[in-house]
Amino acid sequence: MVCDMANISFIDGGITAPKGFLASGVHCGIKNRKKDIALLGSESECNASALYTTNKVKAAPLIVTQRNLSKGKACGAVINSGLANALTGQKGLKDAEEMADLAGFALNCSPEKIIVSSTGMIGKYLPMDKIRAGIQAARGNLGSSRRNGHDAALAIMTTDTVPKEAAVVTTLEDGTRITIGGMAKGSGMISPELKKWHATALTFISTDAAISTGTLNKLLESSVDLSLNMLNIDGDRSTNDMAVILANGKAGNKEMTKVDANFNAALTAILQSLTQQLARDGEGAKKRIEVKIKGAKNTEQARVAARAVVMSNLVKCAIFGEDPNFGRIVTAIGASGADIDAEKVSLRLLSEYGSVDLMSEGNLLALVDDKTYKHARQLLQSPLVKIEVDMKMGTGMAIAWGCDMTYDYVKINSEYTT
Amino acid sequence: MVCDMANISFIDGGITAPKGFLASGVHCGIKNRKKDIALLGSESECNASALYTTNKVKAAPLIVTQRNLSKGKACGAVINSGLANALTGQKGLKDAEEMADLAGFALNCSPEKIIVSSTGMIGKYLPMDKIRAGIQAARGNLGSSRRNGHDAALAIMTTDTVPKEAAVVTTLEDGTRITIGGMAKGSGMISPELKKWHATALTFISTDAAISTGTLNKLLESSVDLSLNMLNIDGDRSTNDMAVILANGKAGNKEMTKVDANFNAALTAILQSLTQQLARDGEGAKKRIEVKIKGAKNTEQARVAARAVVMSNLVKCAIFGEDPNFGRIVTAIGASGADIDAEKVSLRLLSEYGSVDLMSEGNLLALVDDKTYKHARQLLQSPLVKIEVDMKMGTGMAIAWGCDMTYDYVKINSEYTT
Repeated sequence: MVCDMANISFIDGGITAPKGFLASGVHCGIKNRKKDIALLGSESECNASALYTTNKVKAAPLIVTQRNLSKGKACGAVINSGLANALTGQKGLKDAEEMADLAGFALNCSPEKIIVSSTGMIGKYLPMDKIRAGIQAARGNLGSSRRNGHDAALAIMTTDTVPKEAAVVTTLEDGTRITIGGMAKGSGMISPELKKWHATALTFISTDAAISTGTLNKLLESSVDLSLNMLNIDGDRSTNDMAVILANGKAGNKEMTKVDANFNAALTAILQSLTQQLARDGEGAKKRIEVKIKGAKNTEQARVAARAVVMSNLVKCAIFGEDPNFGRIVTAIGASGADIDAEKVSLRLLSEYGSVDLMSEGNLLALVDDKTYKHARQLLQSPLVKIEVDMKMGTGMAIAWGCDMTYDYVKINSEYTT
Repeated sequence: MVCDMANISFIDGGITAPKGFLASGVHCGIKNRKKDIALLGSESECNASALYTTNKVKAAPLIVTQRNLSKGKACGAVINSGLANALTGQKGLKDAEEMADLAGFALNCSPEKIIVSSTGMIGKYLPMDKIRAGIQAARGNLGSSRRNGHDAALAIMTTDTVPKEAAVVTTLEDGTRITIGGMAKGSGMISPELKKWHATALTFISTDAAISTGTLNKLLESSVDLSLNMLNIDGDRSTNDMAVILANGKAGNKEMTKVDANFNAALTAILQSLTQQLARDGEGAKKRIEVKIKGAKNTEQARVAARAVVMSNLVKCAIFGEDPNFGRIVTAIGASGADIDAEKVSLRLLSEYGSVDLMSEGNLLALVDDKTYKHARQLLQSPLVKIEVDMKMGTGMAIAWGCDMTYDYVKINSEYTT
């Protein structure tokens, strides 16, 4: 869970930080004036792994991508924002296939090695004339600079207000210095499911490490479980979510065929960074919430409880209102199905302004002490609020991320067809 | 599912409509100036059945009530609003027991036959001096008039803006004319779970029919499954929810020992009426939403899908914004786990302003026709919006109720410690 940060350095940059990755982002006219097409390529073929939404309604690009990645090989990705190409039937599938064709041509590789991804409004056909011109323009802008990666991160945004990027370097157990880069988008309709092999939000990870597809699968699954799968913005689960990792081997290490602890820690760190960036930019969010459950009966129960707290509309509203309503937190855990004994629970709030215990082994400190309540209110003025709950039932531990619920969340989702 | 309304008449009144029930509601000072203590009594001992929240954190009054109802007998109930007596440990239990003692004295029956119920803010001790005086005052005001029932319905409100009451008369299969009365409260923290023998919101049903406890249990369970258990306001599940039915036998029928179809239909009708009243008064709600799923693989999948739609924050925001965003509806069903084939689904919106098909067997009518979209927007201006989805996979059918998500929902839950 905790990364050995001694061996991991975050560096400036994003998806183009590792050797041999090219990217671009352009405006083709799906969205109004903003970038809406991203291309991502690698100088050499990559081993690839991906996780997909558990929503039973899957968008066309996911169906094409799942088929294309069935052999674990990819050379690049094409992503459009503005429209999701979901609920678009046979025409949607044909459009997603054409995007793969066009991107394959642009990246000089087989269309069957292209990842296709779309995000935006559900239930409208893609304007393929614009997409065709857009992919051609994106091809002309491909490059490996930090700026190129940034353009791609901008082009995949929907209601996001800022792009999400991160890059880390680490040293493998065999001594090779490698780099991992990443970009992500998503600010609404975000509620990953815990099932294995499924993930959420649009997240792309590149690395110059050489890693077998089987090991990539394992690494992605376990890291996503500790990051994206513990993120919740609004309880709604998208038809289009995917998380992808591409490994092109340019770092020159001997191909990794079992999990390298350092790489694993670095991958988890970059995914947690992107997850926190997504939480901070949740639709309408004013505050980021981090919930740590410890002392749960087991890890699964800790995960369920942590997710229940960040998912509770009432907790989210209370945090927005800077109201230390600890009853809602304990109630959310109780409703989650995780075992809880209210007589044992300890609950602490933390922020940059200090920390305050609201419950201590079942004692309702906040009940008896008005000073505690006032201190808690003060603490909640921070843009990052941490909630720590000790269930005192076992050793299960988990962290989940989310954001508060604000007037702007309602505004964004009632005034704008997304 | 559908009641044979021919044999059921809704009449004015509430919990005191059936013969032999007394009620009162008074202000004792837990809430600011509003009524906050209700007493409910029966002239003779009742057979009783109750369902409780599935939240693993259960409020003190639920623990006392479960114990008191273990023999299926009750003579009355005491309910306070303003404070939930939840997360209040041993002191809370003692307070709930004292409430039973005081109500037993007031109703002239054993404290072990008293239902105790509390609703309001979690995590504060009850002001027992006020409660003692309140129960005494409530005793002085007991009566069987419609006004007395109305006072009780007012006294159990929290963030509710209007009391919820209903009464029906029907004729049993043996020809006896009987009456059922009811009152309910709840406008936030409402998300019942489907498990058997558990229910949600505070709901009290009285009837003068004679019914064995075993049959009462069956009747309550099946009717709650078609009403309260299909209600969702905000996805949060309370620590204090209960649904109670009391049958005092004053109608003079031979004790019902198996389910009487007419009684069952009448009970379902009154519970559905209360459920719809709760949905209409959901925290901040401007519009009520009714979702009917048909053609699901089976009933359970229909229930899961219907509940997923009324639970989706994004659907709720779209309805508030009068935006016919059908993609969010289909996405919510897809995420629910119910089987769905997007190529088969039909989706229709209905309101007092007419009806409009947005999807027809997978064809996206709303996509191709701007007139359809405009008509849908117009239709959504109604305070009651119905969504009908035909999954075309089987014969499963279910209806769920909820409300839109508005700025006021955020306001109520961020500005006010509830």
